[in-house]
Amino acid sequence: MHPPRYQWPDGKRCAVVFSADVDAESPFLWANRGKTVTTLGELEQRRFGPRVGIWRMLDLLDEFGVPGSFYVPGIVAETYPEILPALRARGHEIGLHGYHHERVDQVSDDESATILDRSIALFRAQTGETPDGYRSPSWEMTAAIFTQLKARGIAYDSSLMGYDHPYTIGGLTEVPVQWLIDDAIYFKFVGGGADRWHPANPASVLESWLEEWRAVRDYGGLFMITTHPWISGRGQRIRLLRDLFRQIRADSGVWWTTAREIAAYHAASPNAARFETPLRLADTKF
Amino acid sequence: MHPPRYQWPDGKRCAVVFSADVDAESPFLWANRGKTVTTLGELEQRRFGPRVGIWRMLDLLDEFGVPGSFYVPGIVAETYPEILPALRARGHEIGLHGYHHERVDQVSDDESATILDRSIALFRAQTGETPDGYRSPSWEMTAAIFTQLKARGIAYDSSLMGYDHPYTIGGLTEVPVQWLIDDAIYFKFVGGGADRWHPANPASVLESWLEEWRAVRDYGGLFMITTHPWISGRGQRIRLLRDLFRQIRADSGVWWTTAREIAAYHAASPNAARFETPLRLADTKF
Amino acid sequence: MHPPRYQWPDGKRCAVVFSADVDAESPFLWANRGKTVTTLGELEQRRFGPRVGIWRMLDLLDEFGVPGSFYVPGIVAETYPEILPALRARGHEIGLHGYHHERVDQVSDDESATILDRSIALFRAQTGETPDGYRSPSWEMTAAIFTQLKARGIAYDSSLMGYDHPYTIGGLTEVPVQWLIDDAIYFKFVGGGADRWHPANPASVLESWLEEWRAVRDYGGLFMITTHPWISGRGQRIRLLRDLFRQIRADSGVWWTTAREIAAYHAASPNAARFETPLRLADTKF
Amino acid sequence: MHPPRYQWPDGKRCAVVFSADVDAESPFLWANRGKTVTTLGELEQRRFGPRVGIWRMLDLLDEFGVPGSFYVPGIVAETYPEILPALRARGHEIGLHGYHHERVDQVSDDESATILDRSIALFRAQTGETPDGYRSPSWEMTAAIFTQLKARGIAYDSSLMGYDHPYTIGGLTEVPVQWLIDDAIYFKFVGGGADRWHPANPASVLESWLEEWRAVRDYGGLFMITTHPWISGRGQRIRLLRDLFRQIRADSGVWWTTAREIAAYHAASPNAARFETPLRLADTKF
Repeated sequence: MHPPRYQWPDGKRCAVVFSADVDAESPFLWANRGKTVTTLGELEQRRFGPRVGIWRMLDLLDEFGVPGSFYVPGIVAETYPEILPALRARGHEIGLHGYHHERVDQVSDDESATILDRSIALFRAQTGETPDGYRSPSWEMTAAIFTQLKARGIAYDSSLMGYDHPYTIGGLTEVPVQWLIDDAIYFKFVGGGADRWHPANPASVLESWLEEWRAVRDYGGLFMITTHPWISGRGQRIRLLRDLFRQIRADSGVWWTTAREIAAYHAASPNAARFETPLRLADTKF
Repeated sequence: MHPPRYQWPDGKRCAVVFSADVDAESPFLWANRGKTVTTLGELEQRRFGPRVGIWRMLDLLDEFGVPGSFYVPGIVAETYPEILPALRARGHEIGLHGYHHERVDQVSDDESATILDRSIALFRAQTGETPDGYRSPSWEMTAAIFTQLKARGIAYDSSLMGYDHPYTIGGLTEVPVQWLIDDAIYFKFVGGGADRWHPANPASVLESWLEEWRAVRDYGGLFMITTHPWISGRGQRIRLLRDLFRQIRADSGVWWTTAREIAAYHAASPNAARFETPLRLADTKF
Repeated sequence: MHPPRYQWPDGKRCAVVFSADVDAESPFLWANRGKTVTTLGELEQRRFGPRVGIWRMLDLLDEFGVPGSFYVPGIVAETYPEILPALRARGHEIGLHGYHHERVDQVSDDESATILDRSIALFRAQTGETPDGYRSPSWEMTAAIFTQLKARGIAYDSSLMGYDHPYTIGGLTEVPVQWLIDDAIYFKFVGGGADRWHPANPASVLESWLEEWRAVRDYGGLFMITTHPWISGRGQRIRLLRDLFRQIRADSGVWWTTAREIAAYHAASPNAARFETPLRLADTKF
Repeated sequence: MHPPRYQWPDGKRCAVVFSADVDAESPFLWANRGKTVTTLGELEQRRFGPRVGIWRMLDLLDEFGVPGSFYVPGIVAETYPEILPALRARGHEIGLHGYHHERVDQVSDDESATILDRSIALFRAQTGETPDGYRSPSWEMTAAIFTQLKARGIAYDSSLMGYDHPYTIGGLTEVPVQWLIDDAIYFKFVGGGADRWHPANPASVLESWLEEWRAVRDYGGLFMITTHPWISGRGQRIRLLRDLFRQIRADSGVWWTTAREIAAYHAASPNAARFETPLRLADTKF
């Protein structure tokens, strides 16, 4: 009855992916779509990401010699055309993340398809490559987007949490995320009255993340760190990430790679059949 | 004037129950009843429970050789028919928890009776046994449900907090719960904008729980731990529970058992008369 | 320009008051006034106070041999007629706290006067004494209630925070409270979806309270602890209070007494004139 | 691609500014503009600032011999005419902060201009000097206020967060703030049901601030502390600030000065051109 253990390659015990959702201003613009924006406060906070935060992150990854998976909304790549080429030049994976950071359940299926096509075309123009992976804005997914991803040959999604290791859902590889190792839910704070908690103490977040890390390692899962340059590019959080990386680095049983590599491994391994689930929505007519 | 001390059997000083509310998707489906659900995010998060979380919990209980009390909504038993038989095979108590995780104050009295009957029939069909206990979804109770439980021979309720040890209310044995040792209020996080706080640091939660544990032990009460497989089945929280169990296990004055055993003891002991209160609602016509 | 230092009697450096707002069900009933209440959850949580919590608090005060100031809504004294006599017999101060825990800005001036008169009559009937002090429900105050308190010879109010030591406002002695040393804002949790944060770790709250305690001691102020029996009567919080009391007790420069004693001292001391402020509302017509 | 390092004068590695937004009652009055205020609770809480808090802060700055930058709404200077002269006499900078603490996006451009002129006239009348700096209430900014500041010769704004060191935006020097080192977001608590979290443990906030301090120092940025006398004038927070100051003081590479000095240095240095960005709002017509 107990689910079997996930099998990792080369005697590795578990896997780690460092990912970043390079949102910059896009969620703010999407939330204000169609309105006239007259305020600068949140915009400037978010621009800290492309101006400063992302470059600190790239330096940090260089310090440890590890690649990351960066999910970039189309509008961010368009507004900051230096980002995709820099990510590529420094050896990181680039994945899809909507065009305007649209929640997939807030656009029509037709719009969703257009968003994918437009983003892929832009990524090709800026990097010469087609992305392999997709991460949905706000980590929400619909059946339609599954069909559209498969139709375009996107190899994996990274937005769901049904296991704490890769699995196959609706015929697509899922490289799962995890709220509890996402930076935004602890640190995002924009002011203006909408925030629901103050920024967390980074030492406490590190302690929680390390505790999850120890457990994922013991259970043989995937530790998917998710960050945002405008949030984790702030000083104290770069320090948090460095401390976290040091602990992970000290363990030789870890396969530290990109989501793309994980997805390719999964699809070709016996895990794909062992951890497979249909795309099942919900019967609420009772 | 001071309330007398609760008397435990066999020279025990206090009692511990490990309980789990096996909700899986049910609260999400109930919240969306009658609507068409198109999103997968929260569903997949919750399915981590029946896929992974509950099995980790069962292994943990085996590690310590202790039984637990599992409250299962009918729809969860129906959707995952392997759960009840597995719980029974591994020696745990199975109790009622609504059919669709309906809050008892949000259904009519007739519906409430139907929910009970339908759940009991399903439990009998899957396990051959009638449950002894009831825990209400969201820990809310009405006068009607008290009458219905007694009419069906359900031996106890476990949803209220009027004492920190068993008591009798409206003629029914109450095996009380306690928000402060419930996992969901610290760790539940589903995204989408509705969450009111980020997941807590498990070390801080453990520290708070142990402090309550020390007090309950000194006052001679009942320490009722409540968990949810989709929440506490996550890695860091299994570790939290293991650390908590180790501390409790180190105390020989503890009666660690199921809510069913506690209820049976209570009803037959002098405590039943000593800690008895009428079912009293509220006069708000002033 | 710097405000002068508050002068305490007998060479004492600062003062401590332990106070309890004995609310029990009253705020829930007030919030549901005129409605038919059908749910038991919050009621039973709150009844833990008069059943268990308050008696644990009284034992704790006996442990340290210190008196407390207990503010009791009329309806609570009426529902639990054993409370006021027990408080009096054990040497504690009893003060006013509304009849139905009505916020003073949510009732008319006439109702406010009736509430005071009715409460005073009830207190006299149950204890033979007229209360000296008033604490407003939810710590809100209006100009009308000031006038009404003075007209009835109530010696002090304990609801405002304009200084961190006693002062005189609108001709009435104020024995100030402080949110940061109130238990409810950290620990109150009732479920049902209205809570905005989970119960705090008591070790963290103790650390914060002790830090405030050290500062109040150094600045020569009043450390007004506020508790609620249904909240701080829970096990871990009795332990917190014991730890706090031990630290305070270790300092010989402390005047640990009731709010009534503090108020009497203040009114007769030079502090009354030195720390006097008019009752001033706000000009918002700009 | 990596942004260049900010250059500080005299071999200094980083800069520190202690700032205070002397709001007192003004945000409460602004939120209630046009309404009749009948309640005293929040007013008295906020009046702790001009009565006690600000004087404790000034003593603390004297302890360390450092100047601060104080941003004062016109109505506060008008209501408490002792404040501006005292700040000037003790060597601190005085800056603009609205007249009624109006959010700049909630007033018309004409009103915004009137607010500036009226504040400047009042400051001149009370101190004989024209302020050099502006900090917007609630840290929100519009294009209009940029134009108005420049037209009046105001040398800098201190409300945005686009870098963690000074920069130039829309032709104006920006001395940036940072939510994570603002006291109000951790400690502000006024009661009445609107608060979204309880006051933080000051030890935890200090730990977070020190971690940011270490990072800002290493990256060579500006550490802009923001406080409010009615919040940080409370005992435990004065202690927090003292502990923070001690750590900063121990580092000889710090330029600890006022925002005015920082702005003057920035405008005359090569940094002004190196860190320059247009004032860019947002295109949301997609």
